[in-house]
Amino acid sequence: MAMHGIVLFGHGARDVRWREPFERLAGKVRGAASESGPVALAFLELMEPDLPTAVSDLVAQGCEVVTVVPVFFGQGGHVRKDLPLVIEQCQALHPSVLIKCAVAVGEDEAVLDAVAEYCLRQV
Amino acid sequence: MAMHGIVLFGHGARDVRWREPFERLAGKVRGAASESGPVALAFLELMEPDLPTAVSDLVAQGCEVVTVVPVFFGQGGHVRKDLPLVIEQCQALHPSVLIKCAVAVGEDEAVLDAVAEYCLRQV
Repeated sequence: MAMHGIVLFGHGARDVRWREPFERLAGKVRGAASESGPVALAFLELMEPDLPTAVSDLVAQGCEVVTVVPVFFGQGGHVRKDLPLVIEQCQALHPSVLIKCAVAVGEDEAVLDAVAEYCLRQV
Repeated sequence: MAMHGIVLFGHGARDVRWREPFERLAGKVRGAASESGPVALAFLELMEPDLPTAVSDLVAQGCEVVTVVPVFFGQGGHVRKDLPLVIEQCQALHPSVLIKCAVAVGEDEAVLDAVAEYCLRQV
């Protein structure tokens, strides 16, 4: 079976503390996906690594399929315009690797339910 | 009992489609919080309303307590620096209203679990 890598792709921020839940998220996915393949973080800007670096690293580890999951709330310009261009670059660098892209996490019903429950716990 | 309003505070984006999950989220919270008080959206930039407008609207509806929930993944500069300044402005406009601020939704364990499960479903 082909080794399947996952990239959790976030916006990035100036404040390093912003990254902390992304590291926790990567740990959770890594723990659950340990049999299928490696899990990496990547950022659009302000933080490292960028997506081409993360994808190259997964390919170097033997991944033949890479799924990029945009850790964004909505499908805005970053996910609809910027990300496809970067994925195109990655695909050109690794033509034999299948690079797939998921819908932004915030569009998922179960994610929104969990966010709604959190909001209600604050009242 | 004091009427308690909730503001779901997001970053905002140029692409209006980015807003769609925020509207769905507001609908979910509104449905569940219908007995406690009104639920509003507000944005830091690029989208309307801004936080002072949303808070003034909740106060006009009779809210004596307003909880602002940052719909951000991490506690970066927007949540640690920009948001407190805007909340200060809101507080100055409505000195008799208690304005509270929650931690960013992405810091919550259950939210991260739901995001992790979504990521794993993409593989």
